[in-house]
Amino acid sequence: MPKKLNILMFSGEYDKALAALILANTARDMDVDVTMFFAFWGLCLLRSDEKTNSDGKSFYEKLFSVMTPKGPEELPLSKMNFSGIGKAMMLEMMEDGKAPKLIDFLSGARKNGVKFYSCKLSMEIMGIDKNELIPEVEVMTAQQYLEDGLGADMQLFI
Amino acid sequence: MPKKLNILMFSGEYDKALAALILANTARDMDVDVTMFFAFWGLCLLRSDEKTNSDGKSFYEKLFSVMTPKGPEELPLSKMNFSGIGKAMMLEMMEDGKAPKLIDFLSGARKNGVKFYSCKLSMEIMGIDKNELIPEVEVMTAQQYLEDGLGADMQLFI
Amino acid sequence: MPKKLNILMFSGEYDKALAALILANTARDMDVDVTMFFAFWGLCLLRSDEKTNSDGKSFYEKLFSVMTPKGPEELPLSKMNFSGIGKAMMLEMMEDGKAPKLIDFLSGARKNGVKFYSCKLSMEIMGIDKNELIPEVEVMTAQQYLEDGLGADMQLFI
Repeated sequence: MPKKLNILMFSGEYDKALAALILANTARDMDVDVTMFFAFWGLCLLRSDEKTNSDGKSFYEKLFSVMTPKGPEELPLSKMNFSGIGKAMMLEMMEDGKAPKLIDFLSGARKNGVKFYSCKLSMEIMGIDKNELIPEVEVMTAQQYLEDGLGADMQLFI
Repeated sequence: MPKKLNILMFSGEYDKALAALILANTARDMDVDVTMFFAFWGLCLLRSDEKTNSDGKSFYEKLFSVMTPKGPEELPLSKMNFSGIGKAMMLEMMEDGKAPKLIDFLSGARKNGVKFYSCKLSMEIMGIDKNELIPEVEVMTAQQYLEDGLGADMQLFI
Repeated sequence: MPKKLNILMFSGEYDKALAALILANTARDMDVDVTMFFAFWGLCLLRSDEKTNSDGKSFYEKLFSVMTPKGPEELPLSKMNFSGIGKAMMLEMMEDGKAPKLIDFLSGARKNGVKFYSCKLSMEIMGIDKNELIPEVEVMTAQQYLEDGLGADMQLFI
């Protein structure tokens, strides 16, 4: 039986998403089963700019959609973001160190069989439609997430 | 034997408390044992406005008591709070989606048998008295929290 | 077999580091094995002012090194820091309550056999050299962290 890692991705920040996806990719390399459950701000990581649409959205949902990051490279840093300067610095340092970018780790996770789930309730509250997210995502309830998590060897809330 | 979920509620933010309490309520619906241990800013969630009192508090403890949120609906968002505008927007969106508010999830958790514990050391540092918190709360040491957590199937630091 | 606690210390904030180190010390008192894996901002906790050096660092790495906290007592609060006023208040309250400071909990953890590991990839990205960190630290990959975590009874992402 393979070991199982379960990550609840709550935060919508570049550095935390990077940490989560590095762990997810590394775990897949070790043949560990990985499920990532994206809720609240974490959903921003799975959005893509071209797919954002505002059909049927309320005023607040449209405003919210415009104000929140669309996709991995738009996420801010959790610390020292300084309106983007800190993040630009971090990106330069990652490039100097030949480290892949967040979007590369996301692509890796998609190719390597990380299971992507999005939180049904969060999507309803934030007015996010499944079509606005990357196609691998399956919508899941909090109960399904807990069933998965309670059977896992390791659970992280990031 | 029922499964067991253990949550350390460290953060004092509306959205994180919402996530924690949705998980706690959902787990109770699945007959999972749930303990929530409130430490540091997480204690703000259990305060109630009417019960705050400053008897025997030092200058710093009084100041701190005034400056920190008193009860669930006073908590700010972790992101995009914008002095309350982002939170007002989130609340409107929750209402549009007919989602209950944080205080409803807290009431639900209290009725559904979630066990509430507060961190003894945090209360001492922050000068918070047991009488200022909701009545279900039991005061617990870090050791008691760890004993509970090490025997649980799933632990989250939120 | 002793129980095992595994903490991923991602955040570089005074209050979160305090929570993590209180848990680590308490767990050691209970004869629980404790490993702490420091990544990203968490590395700031293990730096020491005297040891910071900029030999061989790139421009961004030097700038980053100057702008980030050097050692436990320089860390800001995660909430209500108010350019340091909130933290000063918290420190006063801890002193009034005769609670040890963060640096005391760190010393305790070093004496009590908490295992300290630092994230190899984070160090490369942030340009931090092993010599800039406390001597107990061993450099570890994400894979080694996951192996440890998957075998632990309790894992926390802080």
